[in-house]
Amino acid sequence: DTALNDSCSIPLPPPTKGATQVLDIDKNTPDAHVPRDPRLIRLTGVHPFNVEAPLSALYDEGFLTSPELFYVRNHGAVPHVTDEEIPDWEFSVEGLVENPFTLTLKQLLLDFQKITCPVTLVCAGNRRKEQNQVRKSKGFSWGAAGTSTGLFTGVLMAELMRVAKPKRKAKYVCMEGADKLPNGYYGTSVKLSWVMDPERGIMLAHKMNGEILPPDHGKPLRALIPGQIGGRSVKWLKRLIITEGPSDNWYHLYDNRVLPMSVSPDEAANNPKWWKDERYAIYDLNVNSVIAYPAHDELLSLVNAPQMYRLKGYAYSGGGRRITRAEISIDKGNTWRLADVEYPEDRYRQYEQTLFGGEVDLAWRDTSFCWCFWSLDVAVEELKGAKDILVRAMDESMNAQPRDMYWSVLGMMNNPWFRVTITEEGDSLRFEHPTQPALQPGGWMEKVKKAGGNLTNGFWGEKLDGDDSGTPAEAAA
Amino acid sequence: DTALNDSCSIPLPPPTKGATQVLDIDKNTPDAHVPRDPRLIRLTGVHPFNVEAPLSALYDEGFLTSPELFYVRNHGAVPHVTDEEIPDWEFSVEGLVENPFTLTLKQLLLDFQKITCPVTLVCAGNRRKEQNQVRKSKGFSWGAAGTSTGLFTGVLMAELMRVAKPKRKAKYVCMEGADKLPNGYYGTSVKLSWVMDPERGIMLAHKMNGEILPPDHGKPLRALIPGQIGGRSVKWLKRLIITEGPSDNWYHLYDNRVLPMSVSPDEAANNPKWWKDERYAIYDLNVNSVIAYPAHDELLSLVNAPQMYRLKGYAYSGGGRRITRAEISIDKGNTWRLADVEYPEDRYRQYEQTLFGGEVDLAWRDTSFCWCFWSLDVAVEELKGAKDILVRAMDESMNAQPRDMYWSVLGMMNNPWFRVTITEEGDSLRFEHPTQPALQPGGWMEKVKKAGGNLTNGFWGEKLDGDDSGTPAEAAA
Repeated sequence: DTALNDSCSIPLPPPTKGATQVLDIDKNTPDAHVPRDPRLIRLTGVHPFNVEAPLSALYDEGFLTSPELFYVRNHGAVPHVTDEEIPDWEFSVEGLVENPFTLTLKQLLLDFQKITCPVTLVCAGNRRKEQNQVRKSKGFSWGAAGTSTGLFTGVLMAELMRVAKPKRKAKYVCMEGADKLPNGYYGTSVKLSWVMDPERGIMLAHKMNGEILPPDHGKPLRALIPGQIGGRSVKWLKRLIITEGPSDNWYHLYDNRVLPMSVSPDEAANNPKWWKDERYAIYDLNVNSVIAYPAHDELLSLVNAPQMYRLKGYAYSGGGRRITRAEISIDKGNTWRLADVEYPEDRYRQYEQTLFGGEVDLAWRDTSFCWCFWSLDVAVEELKGAKDILVRAMDESMNAQPRDMYWSVLGMMNNPWFRVTITEEGDSLRFEHPTQPALQPGGWMEKVKKAGGNLTNGFWGEKLDGDDSGTPAEAAA
Repeated sequence: DTALNDSCSIPLPPPTKGATQVLDIDKNTPDAHVPRDPRLIRLTGVHPFNVEAPLSALYDEGFLTSPELFYVRNHGAVPHVTDEEIPDWEFSVEGLVENPFTLTLKQLLLDFQKITCPVTLVCAGNRRKEQNQVRKSKGFSWGAAGTSTGLFTGVLMAELMRVAKPKRKAKYVCMEGADKLPNGYYGTSVKLSWVMDPERGIMLAHKMNGEILPPDHGKPLRALIPGQIGGRSVKWLKRLIITEGPSDNWYHLYDNRVLPMSVSPDEAANNPKWWKDERYAIYDLNVNSVIAYPAHDELLSLVNAPQMYRLKGYAYSGGGRRITRAEISIDKGNTWRLADVEYPEDRYRQYEQTLFGGEVDLAWRDTSFCWCFWSLDVAVEELKGAKDILVRAMDESMNAQPRDMYWSVLGMMNNPWFRVTITEEGDSLRFEHPTQPALQPGGWMEKVKKAGGNLTNGFWGEKLDGDDSGTPAEAAA
C-alpha cells in the first residue's frame, strides 16, 4: 500500500478491515442487514443510524476516511439492496426536460464517462452539541466529527442533463432517494446552474474509496454535491426531477435551514413562513476549523516534557472555496499565530490517470472540495502559561470564523472559534474540548453552564469583572 | 423620468447634472482635464484622486449612483482621452492564446454582442478608517461610502477569449491599464475559469449609466469584475494577457491583500514572501453592511417625536452571493431583530430588452452582484433607552459579519458589525457613526481612543468591569 501510495503520490484510502458484521444492537432494527463498526458513536439512540467517529480516530485516519468510520446521517431505515440487484437499480431523469428517461445503474456506467475525485462531506449539524449547550435546538448533538472524506467514483450529473435537455424555465434539480420516511421519500434540490458548472463537480457516485457504496452511504447510487452540506447529497438515489422552483419535499422545507436568530422554537413551530423562505436554506458549507490535538481530556505531563507540542486539527469551507489561513491564539484572541496548512487534495491535481475505474482529471479545476489540515508547534512552557487554545480559519473569499455563535432553531452551521481549555493538574496539563458528542458528558461548556456562566457573553462564559484573564488586551498595541 | 421608470419597472440612473467643470483644486494637477463634483471627499489630498461621497448623499441617490458621486480610486494621473479618440482606442488580447489580436473600441462594439447590467463596485478599503483608528494601516482612510452602483454596458470578456482561444496551460487573465505609475502600468489578474463562467458576468464596459465612461472611471474602456473588489476592475484597459500564473504586476503583488493579522508593518516591509503568497490576495468581496440612517451627528428631537424611527442602510457580499438577512441589535448584540431587505437588482431580471444599446438578459442568472437595502422601524422610545445600534448581514453561503475586526497591514476588507452610538442630549438623541472619512474628525471610535478605551476588546472599547452596560446578557435565555 505504502509503495503504491509513494509511487503515484496521491493519498489512497486508509487500510480498511471493512465492517462485515451486523452488530447485536442493530439486529432488532430495520437495519438488521447493515454491517457496522462498533466504534461509531450513536447520536440518536439505536435507530435511525446517525453516528460520528471519535474525533481522534477520525483525524488519525488522515485525509481519506475509511467506510467504517465515515459519519452517517440516516433519516430512517436503510434500503436493502443486494449486490445482485445493483446493476438493475433504476433511476429517472424527469420534469422540465425535452427527453425524460430512466436508466439502470449498469447502463449509466456503460454509457457515460466515469470520474474519480475526493470530496469531504460535512453534516450541517457538525458541532451542534455546542449550540445545544447554549440552548436546546431541534437537532441532535453532533460533536466535531460530523465530517469525513471519501474518494468517489461516478458520473457528472451535468452529462445526464445534456441528454435530458432541460427546458427554458428549468432552474432546479430535485433529487429523491429510496428511503421512505414518515413524510415521504427523502428529497431536496440544488440549482441547475450549479449542476452544469464543471467547477462544482456535482455527480452521481456508485463507489466510495474504490468499493461499492456501503449501505449507510447510499448503496448502490447517491448524489454528491461537493462543497455543500451533506444533506444535499441524496443517498439511494431514485429520481432527478428538473423543476422551475426549489424542491417542495418535506425534508427540503423542514430541514437544513438557518432560521434567523430571533425566531424561537415556538415561532418556528407556529409560523410556516420561516420554512418556506429559500433565503434560510443552507447550501454551501461555511468556514470552520477544529482542534483535534490536544484531544479532549488529553493529559500532557510536564515532567520530562518535550520542548514543543504540536497542535493539530482540520479546516474546511464551502462552495469550492479554499482555506487560506488558520490562526491560533493562546491568549484569548489577543494575538494570533499563523498555522501551517496542508492540502492533500492538491496532490490529485497532478494525477491524470484512471483510479477505481474513473478519470482523475483535476488539473484544470480551480475549486477545492476537501478538508485541509493545520498544525502549529507551540512551546510547552507557553501552554503551561495559557488558559486556552483557540483556532479560527479564513477562506479565499475572506470569510472568517466568528467569535460569536449564531444560535438558531435547528442548531446548524455552528462555526465560532473552536476552543480547548488548559488546566494545570499537578505535574500535568489537562485539555478539554467544548463538548463531547451525543449524551456523553464532558467539556468546558458543560462546566461553565453548571457554574452559572453566560456562554454567549463573547468570552466563553468567563466573568467580565475587570480581571485580566477575561479581558483581551489591545490586539494591535 | 419617473414615468419611464414606472413603465419599465427597472431602476434607471438618478437625475444627473454631470460634472462639467474642472475644479480650481485640480487645475494645477495632471488631472486638469477632468471635470469633477465638489461634494466628493478627497481621501489622499489633492492628487491622485481618491474620493467618496458623503454617506447620506450616496444613500439618498438610491440603487444607482450618479457618475458625479461615484467613488473613485486612482493610483495616479487620469489618462487623457478625448471623445474623438474613443473609437480608435486600441487594446490587445495576447499571451497563452492561439489567436492573439488587437482591437479598436469601435471594432469591439461592432463585432460583439453588447449587454447592460447593474454592478456594485466596492473598494477593498471601504470602512478602512475604522482600522486606522485601531492601528495605522498602510492605507488611506475610507469611510463607509467606498462603494457605488452603476448600470454598465459592454461586452462579455468570455467572448474575446473564445476568439483568442486560450491554450491548455492558460489559467489567468492579466489586465493592464493605460495609467502609468511609479511602478509601471496598473495591472492585476483574475482566473480564466471565472472569466468563462457566464454566472460571473465579467465584462469590458464602455458606458456607465448610459453615458460614455467618465475619465475617472476608465474612459473609454474598463474591465468590470462583478462581485470582486474594485481593484480588479482595471480602468483605461489596454491589454488582456492570458497566462499560466497570476499577474506579476507590482500593484497586483503589493496591493489588495489581507495579510495575516500577525504580520506587522515592519515584517511586511522586510519580508517579500507575504506579498507573493496568492492565498492573501483579495478577490471576492466579503459580507458587509452599514447604517446610513441615522446619519452621523444626526439629532432626533424627542419633543413631538414620531412614534417610530426607520433605521436604514446598505449591505452587500461577494462572488455573486446574495444577502439573505440583515439583523439589528439595540442591546449590544444580546438580541437581534430581522430587518426588511430590498433587492432592486431583481427588477432587472424581469426585463429582457435592450437598454443603452445592450441586452438586459438577467432572467437566467442565479448570481447577485449589487448592493441591497435594509430597513427596520424601531420605536423612538426604544432608541431612547438604547446606547447603540448594531447591524450585521449574512449571505446565502451563511457567511456572517463578525463582532471582531480583522486588522491587517493594508487595512482592507473591514467588516465587523457596524455600530452607531446613541447619546441623549437634552431633549434630543444624538447618533454617532464609528468614524468620518479621511482626516475629518468625529465618530465614537475617536472618543473611545482618546479616553484610553481598548477598541479591540470585543465591546467597542467599553470597560468590562461587571457593569451591565458593557456586558451582554445571555442571548438565548
